[in-house]
Amino acid sequence: MDDLFAAHAALLKSAVAASRERGFWAAFPENPKAYPEGATTEAKAAFAGLRNKLFVLTAEDEAGPYVGAEVSPFGPVLGITYVARTVDDLVARAQQAGAAWAAAGVERRVGVALEILVRLNKASFLVAEAVEHTTGQAGPMAFQAGGPHAQDRGLEAVAYAYEEMARVPGAVRWEKPAGRSTIRLDKDFHVVPRGVGLVIGCATFPTWNSYPALFADLVTGNAVIVKPHPAAILPLALTVKIGREVLTEQGFDPDVLQLAPDTADAPVAKDLATHPAIGMVDFTGSSAFGGWLRETLRDKLVFTEEAGVNTIVIASTGAFAAMCANIAFSLSLYSGQMCTAPQTIFVPAAGIATDEGHKSFDEVASGIGAAIDALLSDPARAAAVLGAIQNPATLTRIEEARGLGRIVRASAALQVEGARTATPLLLAVEADDEAAYLEERFGPIAFVVAVSDAQDAIARATRAARQKGAITAALYSTDEAEIATAIPAYAKAGVALSVNLTGGIYVNQSAAFSDYHVSGANPAGNACMTDAAFVASRFRVVCVRRPAAA
Amino acid sequence: MDDLFAAHAALLKSAVAASRERGFWAAFPENPKAYPEGATTEAKAAFAGLRNKLFVLTAEDEAGPYVGAEVSPFGPVLGITYVARTVDDLVARAQQAGAAWAAAGVERRVGVALEILVRLNKASFLVAEAVEHTTGQAGPMAFQAGGPHAQDRGLEAVAYAYEEMARVPGAVRWEKPAGRSTIRLDKDFHVVPRGVGLVIGCATFPTWNSYPALFADLVTGNAVIVKPHPAAILPLALTVKIGREVLTEQGFDPDVLQLAPDTADAPVAKDLATHPAIGMVDFTGSSAFGGWLRETLRDKLVFTEEAGVNTIVIASTGAFAAMCANIAFSLSLYSGQMCTAPQTIFVPAAGIATDEGHKSFDEVASGIGAAIDALLSDPARAAAVLGAIQNPATLTRIEEARGLGRIVRASAALQVEGARTATPLLLAVEADDEAAYLEERFGPIAFVVAVSDAQDAIARATRAARQKGAITAALYSTDEAEIATAIPAYAKAGVALSVNLTGGIYVNQSAAFSDYHVSGANPAGNACMTDAAFVASRFRVVCVRRPAAA
Repeated sequence: MDDLFAAHAALLKSAVAASRERGFWAAFPENPKAYPEGATTEAKAAFAGLRNKLFVLTAEDEAGPYVGAEVSPFGPVLGITYVARTVDDLVARAQQAGAAWAAAGVERRVGVALEILVRLNKASFLVAEAVEHTTGQAGPMAFQAGGPHAQDRGLEAVAYAYEEMARVPGAVRWEKPAGRSTIRLDKDFHVVPRGVGLVIGCATFPTWNSYPALFADLVTGNAVIVKPHPAAILPLALTVKIGREVLTEQGFDPDVLQLAPDTADAPVAKDLATHPAIGMVDFTGSSAFGGWLRETLRDKLVFTEEAGVNTIVIASTGAFAAMCANIAFSLSLYSGQMCTAPQTIFVPAAGIATDEGHKSFDEVASGIGAAIDALLSDPARAAAVLGAIQNPATLTRIEEARGLGRIVRASAALQVEGARTATPLLLAVEADDEAAYLEERFGPIAFVVAVSDAQDAIARATRAARQKGAITAALYSTDEAEIATAIPAYAKAGVALSVNLTGGIYVNQSAAFSDYHVSGANPAGNACMTDAAFVASRFRVVCVRRPAAA
Repeated sequence: MDDLFAAHAALLKSAVAASRERGFWAAFPENPKAYPEGATTEAKAAFAGLRNKLFVLTAEDEAGPYVGAEVSPFGPVLGITYVARTVDDLVARAQQAGAAWAAAGVERRVGVALEILVRLNKASFLVAEAVEHTTGQAGPMAFQAGGPHAQDRGLEAVAYAYEEMARVPGAVRWEKPAGRSTIRLDKDFHVVPRGVGLVIGCATFPTWNSYPALFADLVTGNAVIVKPHPAAILPLALTVKIGREVLTEQGFDPDVLQLAPDTADAPVAKDLATHPAIGMVDFTGSSAFGGWLRETLRDKLVFTEEAGVNTIVIASTGAFAAMCANIAFSLSLYSGQMCTAPQTIFVPAAGIATDEGHKSFDEVASGIGAAIDALLSDPARAAAVLGAIQNPATLTRIEEARGLGRIVRASAALQVEGARTATPLLLAVEADDEAAYLEERFGPIAFVVAVSDAQDAIARATRAARQKGAITAALYSTDEAEIATAIPAYAKAGVALSVNLTGGIYVNQSAAFSDYHVSGANPAGNACMTDAAFVASRFRVVCVRRPAAA
């Protein structure tokens, strides 16, 4: 047993400071060049070595059933299987292992969590391979979002949880003046876990969206069961494996952190979530299942990130070309499969003022379409930006969406052998076509909506956020008074707003330690990664007091 | 508009420090002598002046309906009526007034809240009269618990909420290195309220149990509707009146803080709680209604303090007489009508070791009974300790409980003209009689339960806390190993434990800034006054970002 808290004290201190400053800070470099040479090659070999085998998570030889049917959106069947334990077995093991974990104390748990994060960082290239070949993210994004950015989000949650626990003193003497004497009590404050944590992963960002909850649960003393999406098990299996290795080395029962793989045909999430021993459920995915969790679970913490309709309002711009290029990239990145990707772009029907003179509604729409064409004109760049389509249903959705409006830019497949790909579909619609553009249409599908004017656009965008949910919103305007008026409306709608983005920063990007991801204040989700509310209820404090020895 | 944040900065700073240190600290003195001479006399006159009249809360002349049927447990009908607005009217006013309140900013809101607390402190004697003649608390307790202790609890919530909001920076510059250039964004973080807050008060501690939620809601930007118990409206009416005065003086619409009085026959709590605009509900009271709120309300924050069975385990003692005296006081204080009062006392059937030699089970039980007799032998002291019985149903409950076991000490009324009083009923029962002693029997009813041994006693006490809920527990033991083993069991059961209390400190006392009241970790309630979880979800953070000007 090492003093991992001391070993990682500087990392924690920096993370805590960064979470309060919220300027730019990252613990884990996003530049692949910052990692040892040969890491990519090694990772590719290691990934190949995992293929067509049982993924071994425990030291024991385990009987099945075995599950696992992952297929890379780039083509290959992964052929990896995993042991599927029963819900009762998983929960019993979590409770058994959780007792010593809860008793270990805040600093030991935080030390272990930090060590897991550092180990995960070393495994970033292998995790990236797993993310790429389950989610369809292109290699560079799979590395950044699946590796260092996810690790930073996990670290952020550790920092928040640590601060909330650290503000509870361990032991104090309470001395109350009582007339001529003093009443003295010794008080010990015990941080106690809430129950077993269940983290339900998604198919598009299995690590990035799971790490905050996973690490918040762990450090607050809760054993954790990770239920990956059946299409993206491997990234979380690698995560759990590394976590279990660290736990074992540090003298803990590795069942503090377990994997609960299942299949689309026999899902276990509901049985797990409703098990009385589960105290917290974190979920990223559909509003249907998120809503079911929120409706069904009583007296459990439920944190969700669900669907929403992210909007852009184009009222005017002083940089038309750069704006179109910026939006084109946001629509194309990972083929619109980010929960932060914009879908619905409001533009005044009479057109807008720009640095290139007046642009009609059609000119704005076709300007964005042309910018997408330009971005994707080089096949290699197109592949690197778009990646692949995670779920075949998304291709069907694109096909079905073609009839929802006037096609400004058609979707098409890339010429990449074996891969499931699609470029963005861009449709022009009228303001009345709410049934088209106010439903979340996950994937590379976007609408340019003709509205009365800028005010109408902002009203529609903020109403959509309030009613349908939204994680991001963008506004382009050269009118400072208009921006100033819009800001409180977006704030009230609980949606993060980006104003006049051009150049190398995009509305879909959410930086750990600075951007709050999901506000929790509209139907897109009730979780916020990461604020104090995300961590503070995962533990409880119990006081033991007794008269102080004289 | 004054700079109340600056005016009260020292108070806030001390409160924040105290909430982290959790040693003894109080902002508002509990000793009546610390207040101006004549304050009691003035308050009694002011209280008399409120009797048999409409309590005027607003500047407008308001049509009815009027409600109010408070009767002092000490005898007199108060004759005070209050304007009862409709649910829709209350909510519409809250939303209307809430916009400017939300926009006012953290420091202005905190300043206003602190000013309200200071004004409440000045009104402590009048509030005490109101508390005494609605709850039945004896004068000294009504003053302390209804006045300064309640104010301290409110201040504690302000301190926690302020710290959680203050950790969110207002504006930052985000500078990310990007190759040879730097991406610069200016980010503003907006604290946004959750919705209108509903605070449902109880009949026994109308101010103490409401102030934490009331002030936490207010400072986090939410307008608040206070729904008092029909039997204890006046203490919260006075509170709301003072709050509205400060709000008005500071340029806010006083409807930021409203009173929603109702009657037992036509309760409005359900209609209020389920109104879509209500974002948070805080409730103190029965498990039946608390459970209904937890089951019914979706996507709202619900904080409850409900029922429970508080236990004492007597395994052995080095101070038999002092222990009996201490327990006798805990059972007698406010006639057992505290949510922290013990009800069920486990004692080994074979008796226990004490400083006075071996004591049989019966000797322990009769020792406690005799200590109650001694405590209450002086009529004036008895009246000051017991106060009156808030609810006539409690007298019925005592009567019905007589048959539940062997009477060790009978309950009796005090000879106080007009007052509804009862001394503690103490019953001896067997371990099997769980139906008797494991139901909460609110009021001066207690059981001494014969169990196998100390281990059995601790197992039963902690199981009762886990299954039935408990806010407090006490343990008497001279065996340090036994205590050490017991502590984690109590911590796991989520119940605050007091060990070997004798002298002037009692298991039912919960001190602001030190004791966490209700852990939230067992069925006695899901709220904890006050931890970070109690405040952190009452607001949300929304980020607005834009490229920094070059």
